[in-house]
Amino acid sequence: MPRPDLLETFPNPYASRDYEIRMTTDEFTSLCPLGGAESDAKDLALLTGGAPDFATIHINYVPGDVCLELKSLKLYLWSFRNDGIFYERAVNRILDDLSEACHPRWMEVVGDFAVRGGIKSVITATVGARKSE
Amino acid sequence: MPRPDLLETFPNPYASRDYEIRMTTDEFTSLCPLGGAESDAKDLALLTGGAPDFATIHINYVPGDVCLELKSLKLYLWSFRNDGIFYERAVNRILDDLSEACHPRWMEVVGDFAVRGGIKSVITATVGARKSE
Amino acid sequence: MPRPDLLETFPNPYASRDYEIRMTTDEFTSLCPLGGAESDAKDLALLTGGAPDFATIHINYVPGDVCLELKSLKLYLWSFRNDGIFYERAVNRILDDLSEACHPRWMEVVGDFAVRGGIKSVITATVGARKSE
Amino acid sequence: MPRPDLLETFPNPYASRDYEIRMTTDEFTSLCPLGGAESDAKDLALLTGGAPDFATIHINYVPGDVCLELKSLKLYLWSFRNDGIFYERAVNRILDDLSEACHPRWMEVVGDFAVRGGIKSVITATVGARKSE
Amino acid sequence: MPRPDLLETFPNPYASRDYEIRMTTDEFTSLCPLGGAESDAKDLALLTGGAPDFATIHINYVPGDVCLELKSLKLYLWSFRNDGIFYERAVNRILDDLSEACHPRWMEVVGDFAVRGGIKSVITATVGARKSE
Amino acid sequence: MPRPDLLETFPNPYASRDYEIRMTTDEFTSLCPLGGAESDAKDLALLTGGAPDFATIHINYVPGDVCLELKSLKLYLWSFRNDGIFYERAVNRILDDLSEACHPRWMEVVGDFAVRGGIKSVITATVGARKSE
Amino acid sequence: MPRPDLLETFPNPYASRDYEIRMTTDEFTSLCPLGGAESDAKDLALLTGGAPDFATIHINYVPGDVCLELKSLKLYLWSFRNDGIFYERAVNRILDDLSEACHPRWMEVVGDFAVRGGIKSVITATVGARKSE
Amino acid sequence: MPRPDLLETFPNPYASRDYEIRMTTDEFTSLCPLGGAESDAKDLALLTGGAPDFATIHINYVPGDVCLELKSLKLYLWSFRNDGIFYERAVNRILDDLSEACHPRWMEVVGDFAVRGGIKSVITATVGARKSE
Amino acid sequence: MPRPDLLETFPNPYASRDYEIRMTTDEFTSLCPLGGAESDAKDLALLTGGAPDFATIHINYVPGDVCLELKSLKLYLWSFRNDGIFYERAVNRILDDLSEACHPRWMEVVGDFAVRGGIKSVITATVGARKSE
Amino acid sequence: MPRPDLLETFPNPYASRDYEIRMTTDEFTSLCPLGGAESDAKDLALLTGGAPDFATIHINYVPGDVCLELKSLKLYLWSFRNDGIFYERAVNRILDDLSEACHPRWMEVVGDFAVRGGIKSVITATVGARKSE
Repeated sequence: MPRPDLLETFPNPYASRDYEIRMTTDEFTSLCPLGGAESDAKDLALLTGGAPDFATIHINYVPGDVCLELKSLKLYLWSFRNDGIFYERAVNRILDDLSEACHPRWMEVVGDFAVRGGIKSVITATVGARKSE
Repeated sequence: MPRPDLLETFPNPYASRDYEIRMTTDEFTSLCPLGGAESDAKDLALLTGGAPDFATIHINYVPGDVCLELKSLKLYLWSFRNDGIFYERAVNRILDDLSEACHPRWMEVVGDFAVRGGIKSVITATVGARKSE
Repeated sequence: MPRPDLLETFPNPYASRDYEIRMTTDEFTSLCPLGGAESDAKDLALLTGGAPDFATIHINYVPGDVCLELKSLKLYLWSFRNDGIFYERAVNRILDDLSEACHPRWMEVVGDFAVRGGIKSVITATVGARKSE
Repeated sequence: MPRPDLLETFPNPYASRDYEIRMTTDEFTSLCPLGGAESDAKDLALLTGGAPDFATIHINYVPGDVCLELKSLKLYLWSFRNDGIFYERAVNRILDDLSEACHPRWMEVVGDFAVRGGIKSVITATVGARKSE
Repeated sequence: MPRPDLLETFPNPYASRDYEIRMTTDEFTSLCPLGGAESDAKDLALLTGGAPDFATIHINYVPGDVCLELKSLKLYLWSFRNDGIFYERAVNRILDDLSEACHPRWMEVVGDFAVRGGIKSVITATVGARKSE
Repeated sequence: MPRPDLLETFPNPYASRDYEIRMTTDEFTSLCPLGGAESDAKDLALLTGGAPDFATIHINYVPGDVCLELKSLKLYLWSFRNDGIFYERAVNRILDDLSEACHPRWMEVVGDFAVRGGIKSVITATVGARKSE
Repeated sequence: MPRPDLLETFPNPYASRDYEIRMTTDEFTSLCPLGGAESDAKDLALLTGGAPDFATIHINYVPGDVCLELKSLKLYLWSFRNDGIFYERAVNRILDDLSEACHPRWMEVVGDFAVRGGIKSVITATVGARKSE
Repeated sequence: MPRPDLLETFPNPYASRDYEIRMTTDEFTSLCPLGGAESDAKDLALLTGGAPDFATIHINYVPGDVCLELKSLKLYLWSFRNDGIFYERAVNRILDDLSEACHPRWMEVVGDFAVRGGIKSVITATVGARKSE
Repeated sequence: MPRPDLLETFPNPYASRDYEIRMTTDEFTSLCPLGGAESDAKDLALLTGGAPDFATIHINYVPGDVCLELKSLKLYLWSFRNDGIFYERAVNRILDDLSEACHPRWMEVVGDFAVRGGIKSVITATVGARKSE
Repeated sequence: MPRPDLLETFPNPYASRDYEIRMTTDEFTSLCPLGGAESDAKDLALLTGGAPDFATIHINYVPGDVCLELKSLKLYLWSFRNDGIFYERAVNRILDDLSEACHPRWMEVVGDFAVRGGIKSVITATVGARKSE
């Protein structure tokens, strides 16, 4: 179960300036909430949910008064490891949890998921408006 | 024959927010509707249509009230396997079928077809307007 | 000698919609119209024009009432093989011939020519206006 | 059903010399002989076998008295399109059919299959001995 | 806990010929058996072991009388997901389990693990002798 | 301790024209100001601060009356080597120091930091407005 | 010493149309005007200026009434070989010389210089305004 | 018609030492000797032979008493431009012509031909023995 | 000063089998022991040695009775950060220290150093003999 | 004129061990000794020899009693800048000069020259025997 309570922040050392932070991890994994092929794993009591999903997650934001603390972000992302969640929910949930924790001026979360059934999925969700370049 | 009746949807879990879904498969194949070199295959009763075509298909959209269900999308794309269809028709047909099934706020379909006669073709069609970035 | 008379078209199956077709070939060759090093070839009666030029040609367009037929386009591009033509002329000539043949809403031709004298040249010419994204 | 009867050969123009021919296509497709997810397609009468498989096939050989004719090889490979066959069988079957057709001094067939269940498979089979370099 | 009992095999359809099967997955994950930074996760009851490890696993072999069944291999690899195991043990354990299950003529297992502390590790273990090329 | 006093400039030879200078180094290193794993190094008196950080730094600007002298910039960047500083501070500090030294019309500093805890960070800060293209 | 007198032009064959010409060479070399390490070379009478600099030069323009003749451009660029010139001057000087020679509607010169002291420099200068896309 | 009479050589300046020369051009073109699709071109009198073929040619050798002169090699390769020749013949013919002209201690010719009918072909032929490394 | 006393080992869990461990870090930095350009840094009391050097270090070995503990290896490599050492010495010293610590059956150390004066250096040293493949 | 007198060496710090040093520079330039197109430059008194040649030079060796000093190697390579020399001579000359200066156990020099007349050349020469791996 995602654990937003693990997220910590620290005061933005340059809050007077709009600047951008981009964090990327290719070590995100969760479980598929569906049955089907995954039911093998369930039947075998290998996994509490369904088949494993793997993704690269990009978190891009312009911080407001606080920044996300890197280590707490890592722990938060680990907390998806053994729960079943759909791609669309995972990306929007991460965006909700992170933006609630740090109230960014702009934030974008991208989930780039591994191929399933020959199809690759990339989900992108955003809150706030980025300064026009 | 394309089978849009196979397409299924599920309620968009975050319909209040514009977010983008990008799905890509490099396992699309159909048949060329023309004769010519392909007539060899027809004469030999190898293929009911003409020569095989291969493409990478990109489906990018901002969902409205519903999202496309991934497995049904896979089956829909399989349904082109043994029919003859031109590149331009295939891409626009997929766009029509998918947008009719899920009424997206914006949808783009790209068909990136393998080299034929030393020429590579990429077709891109769109419905709706993407939010300006 | 370029042979625009070889170009054939077919009715645009989705003329009510602006969509984009991108065709690319890395098998374009013509001759340099100049003397110099090439005069060797001329003296030896190897080539009727000058030294061979090689290019990748990109043809990108939004079709109007008709689309370019792929096989006839291939034959048209072959017709440059044994004529001498400068880079700038070749790209603009292809744009003129193709746009006259199919009256596109927008068309761009790019010629990406192989290195000569340590310098690589890319020429891009356009007719019509592309819909703003 | 694979159609080795389609294969044609022509006399090796340089049979007195050991030289190597490498042919590669990334347009090979067959069907999975198994049920499971594929049974959807069968139930829907989309495909006569199971789910589609895709592979890049490499055919490398030192010709003996005859060479494989390229166009007939293409037709032969098309003949796998609508049959169910396992990876191991497909690669060894191609090796058997081709080596029987042209009696090469050495032949290697490699099938590089698309990811299934998160796992990619590459099968390599060989007949004869390659001259040591 | 690794579950070699999940592994299934099928008779090698071409046992009379030495041929090579290469299987690769970039979706392997296990847990680090150590404390340290990982103790955060343990303290928070996020993970039963330590911090997550990620790897690409290559399994290359020349089958003997039987081949490894792909789906059972996938389930076997999933069984490492929530156990703590060192890199060296993981690779050698996979080699032991797989070679015991299918008695290959030659087998190589490579574990290519993600960067930890700025250092990337790749472990390669082998049983049997590969035919000299 | 960053040493902005080391920075030198020279008169912009083309101050009447807006043009862009992009400088990149992949040889930036500083120390992490935090304890944790880094405390090992501290305990061992290996490093006066914490664990080493590594980054590629991009400095892009449109010069005003003066340009940054390349060798003095190198020395300035070396001066971070043995101090502890957070990513966000490092990038904004470099931007402050450099823009104060040369009063550019526009300047952007990007710090692309090596993976820590499986997460990669890129920080981008800007002063002034770039001419619209 | 740069020799703009070497530059030759020819009438633009399609002056009625705005089109773009991009020329690139990775064979540009000049000398550093400074002493330092380079003084070794000077002392040894190896080079009349300082240490060699190497760059890739991009020249992109929309021709007006005339186009730059390729061979004369090559000779012009060779004329920098044995002179000492700073990066900023070299790029702006080339832009001045070329734009004076051919009066382009728009011209951009990019000098992408090899790493010196661990820092890579790219200078971009422009005259005229490019048509908005 | 290939013109080996164009080939020139010069004395090997270091004949006492075995060293290797590798020359590569991606500008080789010839015609297909066959009818079929190519007959279009023939009917239209575009090409005296069949459809154009394109290849990258690698010529690797250890020179004996003489080396191949680069410019004459270029002219020799141009002489294939308007003749019909099969892949296997082209590569072996080039090997025969070049090795007869310069009597190398070892020579290898590789022809890497563009995709035709979805299949790419690479032909490698060799004369003499390379020193074992 | 390199600190081999920091190195720790653990018993090889599969000592009965020859297997290979490859560890790579691109975060190695030391100082140049020479004066020259580096004397600037010394004069400015920025660095206790000379100019910084950067390298990617590869450590490949077949363990004997013990394996190198990853975290202690990281600390050992950090201990080069503020000492002046030549490339050749650094690589051979690492090989000496590591092989003395763990008595491998075979070990190779590769130092791939960043460009200096336009020249890149890679040093490779080995102890013991690798099993022939 | 090549200046081998510039080359300096230093005692091999690990002469008791065979280890390999690989040095690479992509900043080598010389002049073509021939007339032809290059005569333009000569007529214009731009270059004392012919047209510029550019190459990447690889120097790989196992040192004997002494190693090549990096800075003196750089100066030696600069000394080719304004002399006319053929590819084959340049590579063999560098090998002769360097091996005479440092008496390596094995040395290989590779010159990878830029495309001329559409043909790229790579020359490799060696002295001594490399230890078999």
